[in-house]
Amino acid sequence: MPGHVSFVGAGPGAADLLTLRAMLRLQSAEVVLYDALTDASLRSVAPHAQWVDVGKRGHCAGATPQARIDALLVGMARQYAKVVRLKGGDPSIFGRLEEEIAALQANGIGFDIVPGITAALAAAADSARPLTRRGRGRSVALTTAVTAEGQLRGGRHADTEVFYMAGRQLGALGRRLLQDGWSPDTSVLVVSRAGCPDVLSSSHFLQELAHATLLHSGRPTVVTVGAGAQAVGYPPVAAVKAQPVKQPSAAA
Amino acid sequence: MPGHVSFVGAGPGAADLLTLRAMLRLQSAEVVLYDALTDASLRSVAPHAQWVDVGKRGHCAGATPQARIDALLVGMARQYAKVVRLKGGDPSIFGRLEEEIAALQANGIGFDIVPGITAALAAAADSARPLTRRGRGRSVALTTAVTAEGQLRGGRHADTEVFYMAGRQLGALGRRLLQDGWSPDTSVLVVSRAGCPDVLSSSHFLQELAHATLLHSGRPTVVTVGAGAQAVGYPPVAAVKAQPVKQPSAAA
Repeated sequence: MPGHVSFVGAGPGAADLLTLRAMLRLQSAEVVLYDALTDASLRSVAPHAQWVDVGKRGHCAGATPQARIDALLVGMARQYAKVVRLKGGDPSIFGRLEEEIAALQANGIGFDIVPGITAALAAAADSARPLTRRGRGRSVALTTAVTAEGQLRGGRHADTEVFYMAGRQLGALGRRLLQDGWSPDTSVLVVSRAGCPDVLSSSHFLQELAHATLLHSGRPTVVTVGAGAQAVGYPPVAAVKAQPVKQPSAAA
Repeated sequence: MPGHVSFVGAGPGAADLLTLRAMLRLQSAEVVLYDALTDASLRSVAPHAQWVDVGKRGHCAGATPQARIDALLVGMARQYAKVVRLKGGDPSIFGRLEEEIAALQANGIGFDIVPGITAALAAAADSARPLTRRGRGRSVALTTAVTAEGQLRGGRHADTEVFYMAGRQLGALGRRLLQDGWSPDTSVLVVSRAGCPDVLSSSHFLQELAHATLLHSGRPTVVTVGAGAQAVGYPPVAAVKAQPVKQPSAAA
């Protein structure tokens, strides 16, 4: 008889943003399949489980193909009674959960899903910038900045738009969003390592988004655009301002 | 010297979907201001705190106006060192967080924000219907079905659209979404009391959304429309089918 798989949302990284339900699943797991994005400190929750890294961060050459992860998951569920498939953030948001559920279903393996804090929520909390705003911020869209094929994507779906996996291409994303009809002075908030003690956030006008590149380099990053990127009680401000191309005259 | 306010996301209701960080904030709180939507069982996390119901569920006549909540929050933070403002789901999503932050800022009161599981994520987990899908479900929008003024809203912002506060007007929402360009056979998933032991979910074609009204009556309900509403591994199916208006002929 096969075991049971729990898909568990790890949240954005910090172990104290796990839910209690996630914690319980981890504590009773015999084996934990986890992604490279997951914070290493989460291991302390289940020190006696076998931890298997199946990470496929970004679209690197060394990434584990999804089909191999599916096969590994099925194999582990045949060997162990309690398997946890730990996913960064929330399993239902950009977690490729569909493929793994289908693999389990095809093999008659039972599962459940424990939701997690997705990065957009942690970024909003850390920066005190609510994703919805009275009157002007009534819808929020979550989008990947990069497709599975590695193509950059923009879009203007809602009053507030949050782009995931955007860190490597902030300049190109900014240009793309201008093409998509966002105004150059749209407020943009860039947050990396949301939810963690070393979180960094910076505010920009859309036309200056490229300036955020260095600060957030090499860190998991979400980019919030529009109403939800504005500081509460203030008109949009740019914390990182462009240097003027021409120096102002002495009289200025 | 004023106290400190923690805005804490309670998640969709079940106490085990609190994060550990939320739990710690509750345990050290002297006073907890909470909404009617919050599950009563959460009280056991902070049994010695003073619990104050400031609920304004829906748009009822007896609802607490936002300005009164703001004033109460400021007043409590002047009286107590540790105040928790507990909000259903995630504070940054449809939580009217902006107004309360502005009130604290205007009075020099410090605060932090602890994210929570928003209902869309819990609904996706409970129904095993990931909000993003490979190739066809690349963006997710979260929208309220009803404005602050009580007006019904639809929209077609993304591949998957999740409507909050939709329970009372499922039939009208369905008609509105047809007008907004969604096809009559679009998959729709209705989930009430997501994340809780008594969760209910039902699948429909958009044109038959009104059929879900009775099942979910009087329960907090989210409605997922589009790619993310489909069952994994199946073409869209309608669990609640309309009775055919004309009986099929005997030959059928």
